[in-house]
Amino acid sequence: MKTISEPTRRRLVLLANLLSRSKQERITSVKIQEMTGFSRDLIRKDISLLDFKGGVSNGYDSKELLAAICSGLGLSFGEKGEARFCCIVGLGKLGAAIMQCGMFDKTPFKIKAGFDSRVNRTEVLSADFPLYPAAKMETVIPGENIEFAILAVEDEQAQLMADRLVRSGIRGMVNLTGESLSVGDEVVVENISPVLALENILAKI
Amino acid sequence: MKTISEPTRRRLVLLANLLSRSKQERITSVKIQEMTGFSRDLIRKDISLLDFKGGVSNGYDSKELLAAICSGLGLSFGEKGEARFCCIVGLGKLGAAIMQCGMFDKTPFKIKAGFDSRVNRTEVLSADFPLYPAAKMETVIPGENIEFAILAVEDEQAQLMADRLVRSGIRGMVNLTGESLSVGDEVVVENISPVLALENILAKI
Repeated sequence: MKTISEPTRRRLVLLANLLSRSKQERITSVKIQEMTGFSRDLIRKDISLLDFKGGVSNGYDSKELLAAICSGLGLSFGEKGEARFCCIVGLGKLGAAIMQCGMFDKTPFKIKAGFDSRVNRTEVLSADFPLYPAAKMETVIPGENIEFAILAVEDEQAQLMADRLVRSGIRGMVNLTGESLSVGDEVVVENISPVLALENILAKI
Repeated sequence: MKTISEPTRRRLVLLANLLSRSKQERITSVKIQEMTGFSRDLIRKDISLLDFKGGVSNGYDSKELLAAICSGLGLSFGEKGEARFCCIVGLGKLGAAIMQCGMFDKTPFKIKAGFDSRVNRTEVLSADFPLYPAAKMETVIPGENIEFAILAVEDEQAQLMADRLVRSGIRGMVNLTGESLSVGDEVVVENISPVLALENILAKI
């Protein structure tokens, strides 16, 4: 397989996400363009980088294309994939909302724990999984095989909690705070602060 | 100025965000590496694409570097920049949390309105700005010069609300839903669904 650049990988992840939820047996590049906003030519070029020969005039076989993307990118999606365990760190308004709004239902991700440094938050809130004081991170995270964290603490706490997550053996973090995190090469960070997203939009228009 | 690729632009936006909040007069590429995780060489290469000659052995002048990035990317940050007006669409748990957690304080973005199709949400919640039934989007958004929207509705409503935002003249959307949006070439979408972020992490590790 050819080398896959960062923008191509992001487009393919989005496409895999779409395909995993689609009920259509076949999908055309025109339809993908319509659903993602990426041009047909770009989509065809991205797919051509995969070990996938399934493209014909009446579109791609959805399942085969999904399998090719997952195999190419090392993703596990859908029925065959086992759940990957996550935790939420920071149970303020934002963390609690993410915890309670059910966005991880029907995804390969399962939240196994919530953490907050304020004991009153972990006692007041309720969830389908246990909530712990932050002091337990270093034992619960490896003990529960938690690989990923959603970081939703106050900005001032962000780096401190990121350091503790790294020490706990986490492999990736979704950073909802406004801070940049320094985590070393072994841990992957995805920054999804709404403020940063707006700044990225400003830079594009 | 040379052409700026998508990954470079994203790194520069993150750097501008950092610089706009930094109190240091000078910043070295080593320090930027420490704060962002991007390698020094990559940082120097990104900066070399800007019209900026300020790099010397003891680092960059923070203000000048910020100005060069803003000028290069067409961003307006900090004291000189005027506020850019935003709205939040969808005032469920997630939208309400974003509305109330103060993340836009001290940023160039100001929330001017919240919308929800359920009148009871707009009546029950309180905010520093007016909340409207979704039926008012097409009048309030142009009337208040709102350029950007944070989309935090249920997945099933995502495309419908995106269509209405486009019709209302919005220029960019931050998409927190799990859906891909089809919005045409004139509108910029940033997808920051936590699920998609986890999938992007999976594809990287």
